Amino acid sequence: MDVIEELKAVRGRDIPYSRVLSSMCTVPHPVAAEAHSLFIETNLGDPGIFVGTMELEKKVISMLGRLLGNKNAAGYISSGGTEANIQGIRAARNLKKVDKPNIVIPKSAHFSFEKIGDILGVEIRRAKLDENYCVDVSEVEKLVDDNTVALVGIAGTTELGQVDDIKELGKIAEDQNVFLHIDAAFGGLVLPFLDEKVPFDFEVRAVSSITVDPHKMGMATIPAGGILFRDETFLKALEVETPYLTTRFQYTLTGTRPGTGVASTYAVLKHLGYDGMKGIVRECLRNTRTLVEEMKTLGFEPVVEPVMNVVSFHARDASRLKDELYRRRWVISTIREPEAIRMVIMPHVNEEMIKEFISDFRQMLIRLGYLS
Amino acid sequence: MDVIEELKAVRGRDIPYSRVLSSMCTVPHPVAAEAHSLFIETNLGDPGIFVGTMELEKKVISMLGRLLGNKNAAGYISSGGTEANIQGIRAARNLKKVDKPNIVIPKSAHFSFEKIGDILGVEIRRAKLDENYCVDVSEVEKLVDDNTVALVGIAGTTELGQVDDIKELGKIAEDQNVFLHIDAAFGGLVLPFLDEKVPFDFEVRAVSSITVDPHKMGMATIPAGGILFRDETFLKALEVETPYLTTRFQYTLTGTRPGTGVASTYAVLKHLGYDGMKGIVRECLRNTRTLVEEMKTLGFEPVVEPVMNVVSFHARDASRLKDELYRRRWVISTIREPEAIRMVIMPHVNEEMIKEFISDFRQMLIRLGYLS
Repeated sequence: MDVIEELKAVRGRDIPYSRVLSSMCTVPHPVAAEAHSLFIETNLGDPGIFVGTMELEKKVISMLGRLLGNKNAAGYISSGGTEANIQGIRAARNLKKVDKPNIVIPKSAHFSFEKIGDILGVEIRRAKLDENYCVDVSEVEKLVDDNTVALVGIAGTTELGQVDDIKELGKIAEDQNVFLHIDAAFGGLVLPFLDEKVPFDFEVRAVSSITVDPHKMGMATIPAGGILFRDETFLKALEVETPYLTTRFQYTLTGTRPGTGVASTYAVLKHLGYDGMKGIVRECLRNTRTLVEEMKTLGFEPVVEPVMNVVSFHARDASRLKDELYRRRWVISTIREPEAIRMVIMPHVNEEMIKEFISDFRQMLIRLGYLS
Repeated sequence: MDVIEELKAVRGRDIPYSRVLSSMCTVPHPVAAEAHSLFIETNLGDPGIFVGTMELEKKVISMLGRLLGNKNAAGYISSGGTEANIQGIRAARNLKKVDKPNIVIPKSAHFSFEKIGDILGVEIRRAKLDENYCVDVSEVEKLVDDNTVALVGIAGTTELGQVDDIKELGKIAEDQNVFLHIDAAFGGLVLPFLDEKVPFDFEVRAVSSITVDPHKMGMATIPAGGILFRDETFLKALEVETPYLTTRFQYTLTGTRPGTGVASTYAVLKHLGYDGMKGIVRECLRNTRTLVEEMKTLGFEPVVEPVMNVVSFHARDASRLKDELYRRRWVISTIREPEAIRMVIMPHVNEEMIKEFISDFRQMLIRLGYLS
């Protein structure tokens, strides 16, 4: 068999996005895929060769910066949210230079912060949440000490899509003279398009860095994460010398890195514009409300009313439900506290898909004796 | 202007590979580009969804393992060589658990090891080189102490393509009970295809991990790095729990990660087979010899006779030559010790390109008064 035929068969064993309700990634926008193909050879690790692509990255960072309250933001398109969070925390650690650095993060922070703690040798202190599953700011305050280099706020938690009180976190960060990194990997391309503005970005004075991933709600191709800093001084804290390249310093975590994410991010933002993106977000939120209504008819109540297109529903036997759905080739996920099933209503999750899911789920619940 | 037209103009400002003699990356093999496109939506960060792609990654790791002397190697396709080296050193650091970890690396190691030292909080000790620009093994021995977690050997240095004496490094690693990581990012897909076998891989008993990048000599699409460990215990040392995903643990540095590198690596290796790869490497080495002969006619002598398709030539004013060539849209690079100009003869560097380069270079040298 020809290798391309063989690879098509491999892809056939993957579950298609039309059955995926658990992922914060989605089918790339057609214009993203087209842009991606044009840049398939590019390597931003060598900016003296890829001069045009490098200029484009600067433009993309400036576009993202403008969306996030700081047109002078410095940063780059990374391999994803984990690299972006590593770099945000690494810059804080390198600038603070304490002996036994720690960071204070919400209990709701993404699991990758455990990885980041291990990689960077930074102690991770997890602050409890309040009744809305946002970080309890007084708990954060208690955990800060002289070795704290940064606080982390989440704008769009992985489990519930909640946004921490970034303004209050900002006050603590200023009082204690520590950095404030915002993980808006998901929410960074949702919140700017909501009618009701939530303060979470560089407009909050204490915010020093923001993770925002175009390969999530930006419908860019993978890999396209993003790390934005308030200014260039943070990039300096990450630099190493590069003797053989066409440039003298490198602030990225990776060396060789694709220009595809830059191109696909640019293509989507430019093609859709602010209003187009707003339309996509509006549609996702409308579908989220539809899903919540449908789930209520099956007896499921949301853990919190969703502010964005992530929602979890209280469920006994959450893991079993997930596994049974998976056997039927539907992918959802679960959370542990409280026990719940979780869904993300990405742009590929349209009304028709929701109806099909609800219908299959209803039949399954009846078969398993949860519903009559 | 349509965004795709705009992006084409951006690509037009990049320097094409047909003018690049400095990069360890190359134009992806056509079968790699085709495979890449089929996998553009895939995310190996969620292996329960991308079941087929995940199986393919296991197959690719096993293929690479077989090429590198260990069909049971464990590992994954990473964002590139830097991530692979980070993970190799991180596993050693986590398994050794000493207070102030250090690693001993050759002075010829890639600059990214500085980054790795900073990220992981590991002291980097650089051992001097011998007269052939390979690591001086007695210098390595002197630098090892109780806090050393790993030695690093290079199989294909960035500057000269030299291969350290991995067997001797292996003896020290065994004597001192430390890990031995091999950076074969470049050489890992050259050395297995040479007629003369050089011991550098898992066949050397002490070798615990190897970096091998398919997006270099494997002609895969970017990003496709690779980290291979002797066995799965090393992956365990990197794992964190993953509450919301379709899998329970994650040993990769990144979370969301593309399946494109897996697919393109597989496509090239399967399509070309061992003999096909050998043919590509043979051609690169033939072109390297042609370049060396032509450069000699211009008065340039290689720093060492190249063992692979990387070669540096002694040059006064190396930086000036590089800059003047760059003005003429030819990209080469330089090294500092000794002062030299450096070229990498990747698969896109064919005989015609070499002839054109030499002709332009000759004219430039005459114009600048270096040649008459």
